[in-house]
Amino acid sequence: MRIDELTTPALLVEQAVLDANLDTMSAALPGPRLRPHVKAHKCTALAHRQRANGHVGFTCATIRECEVMVAAGLGEDLLLANEVLDARRLGTLVRDGARVTVAVDSAETIAAAAAGGVREVLIDVNVGLPRCGCPPERAGDLAGEARRSGLEVRGVMGYEGHLMLVADPADRARSTGDAMALLLAAAADVGGALISAGGTGTYADNTWATEIQAGSYALMDTAYGAVGHPFGQALSVLGTVVSAAPTHAVVNVGLKSLGMDHGLPAIPGAQVWFCSDEHTTFAPEEPVRAGDRVRVLPAHVDPTVVLHERMHVVDGDRIVETWGVDMRGW
Amino acid sequence: MRIDELTTPALLVEQAVLDANLDTMSAALPGPRLRPHVKAHKCTALAHRQRANGHVGFTCATIRECEVMVAAGLGEDLLLANEVLDARRLGTLVRDGARVTVAVDSAETIAAAAAGGVREVLIDVNVGLPRCGCPPERAGDLAGEARRSGLEVRGVMGYEGHLMLVADPADRARSTGDAMALLLAAAADVGGALISAGGTGTYADNTWATEIQAGSYALMDTAYGAVGHPFGQALSVLGTVVSAAPTHAVVNVGLKSLGMDHGLPAIPGAQVWFCSDEHTTFAPEEPVRAGDRVRVLPAHVDPTVVLHERMHVVDGDRIVETWGVDMRGW
Repeated sequence: MRIDELTTPALLVEQAVLDANLDTMSAALPGPRLRPHVKAHKCTALAHRQRANGHVGFTCATIRECEVMVAAGLGEDLLLANEVLDARRLGTLVRDGARVTVAVDSAETIAAAAAGGVREVLIDVNVGLPRCGCPPERAGDLAGEARRSGLEVRGVMGYEGHLMLVADPADRARSTGDAMALLLAAAADVGGALISAGGTGTYADNTWATEIQAGSYALMDTAYGAVGHPFGQALSVLGTVVSAAPTHAVVNVGLKSLGMDHGLPAIPGAQVWFCSDEHTTFAPEEPVRAGDRVRVLPAHVDPTVVLHERMHVVDGDRIVETWGVDMRGW
Repeated sequence: MRIDELTTPALLVEQAVLDANLDTMSAALPGPRLRPHVKAHKCTALAHRQRANGHVGFTCATIRECEVMVAAGLGEDLLLANEVLDARRLGTLVRDGARVTVAVDSAETIAAAAAGGVREVLIDVNVGLPRCGCPPERAGDLAGEARRSGLEVRGVMGYEGHLMLVADPADRARSTGDAMALLLAAAADVGGALISAGGTGTYADNTWATEIQAGSYALMDTAYGAVGHPFGQALSVLGTVVSAAPTHAVVNVGLKSLGMDHGLPAIPGAQVWFCSDEHTTFAPEEPVRAGDRVRVLPAHVDPTVVLHERMHVVDGDRIVETWGVDMRGW
């Protein structure tokens, strides 16, 4: 089947670019040095590819992601890198034989983990991003509280998310070091083997964490693409030109098929004007006609993928495989 | 069932506010004066409510929306207010007894409509929003071309989308009049009974169109709420506080449960700092604890709803009904 036959909009993944991205990252962070984050692709078929590249443990952002990963046979060592106040569904996974570790940063989340039947936790530490995570100096106390609740504390995590899109390499490396100094201090108080941190933006800078939680590197987006990492743009949204005027044209890819929090998408050879629910208006350098196909490059991979039911792995215009985006919802 | 029992994030619709919104609009634009746009809610249960209020015709943005509306028994008079280059699925609906009219603005879209088995079209006219739609002076020629292709031309449509969020009433009314002057000129050249235009933002100003394509009024969002129309905020996303620090708290409602193209959501009694994939970080006026429930108000209704599998109609904390968001995808 060829992409001309697809109903648009449709999510495309360029196979050769995906393969190169997976191999580049696995060479830099082999085996347990990488704990791929599935939130960026929400696709167990792609996770199976990462598993085949030697990465046994995975990072999840939602309980649903954990459940679907387990159902796909990928539950050997899942980290839910997020706080939950009701861990009963995770407890069910653990009782059924999966290994699920959950992040905790408060008495309430420790109590929820213990009550829900989860056995292992990481202490989530705020390393500079004002989001979840306890103050570093409180991590040891929380670890003690978790252990008294009967939980195994595997170590710490601390996501330096505020540094992911810092473009200057020296600035990014220095700031990552500062953030990880906080995490290492907490790790010394907490104990355990794991220091889990990082992402695609800091995968090469963060030499302190024992494992990196990168996800975007596999598919990529224009925001990460602008930073200069050795990962190519594998993801695009295929659209059909539905209207063409002398000044502009309209492709049927819009707010309902693109994550917009990082701004407008890009169209090679064109200037993007704006997006509406089902449309992107753009000014092409060369004239286009109604019926032409256009590939739109999302600014942010994670909230783009979640809008689609499936992704098509392509070799140019040929569809090689079609994968379900099977970890959507909560 | 009460909302405390819901897995979060969860889409809530306040029943009394929805009812008031539906009734207010139906009083202003009774029966065929309103052709509700389903793209804003993508929910046939809600469309049935609009039908019960006297609106027989509906506006759709995608072929999938048309198909699901027909399957739900709501295919009496559907307008696909969008251009398509492959109308075969619409032709199937027409052959099976539904009435489906599609927008055309070019020789290519007319040819696609005729080839696909659609029998009725509207000529889509650009009235100032640089998106789809032919120049007004070209509408008559396209109508002739459509008729020569065997299509029935029911009239014109022209969406003044660039005026929807104009806050000054006099400015908005004057600009709407200017846009509709273009559409009326095209209508005179095209013939047919329908002049379809408008939206929630101009529903009261646009006295020239024979029918208004409003959709957002039913559920509403903070962007429309700021303009001052008589529609209340029925929609919210229920979340759980997963982390609370002295300076800020985090609720599990983020980029994957909120449309972000109109900017940050609002949380009553709090200042919103930023959103991440599964989180919104905010500074509450009164302290919150992990486990508290928070209602987050989206800035844009359409791309928010599409991220959810269902919406819960609530009376305060009590769940009255649960409706599927059953028109997602393409």
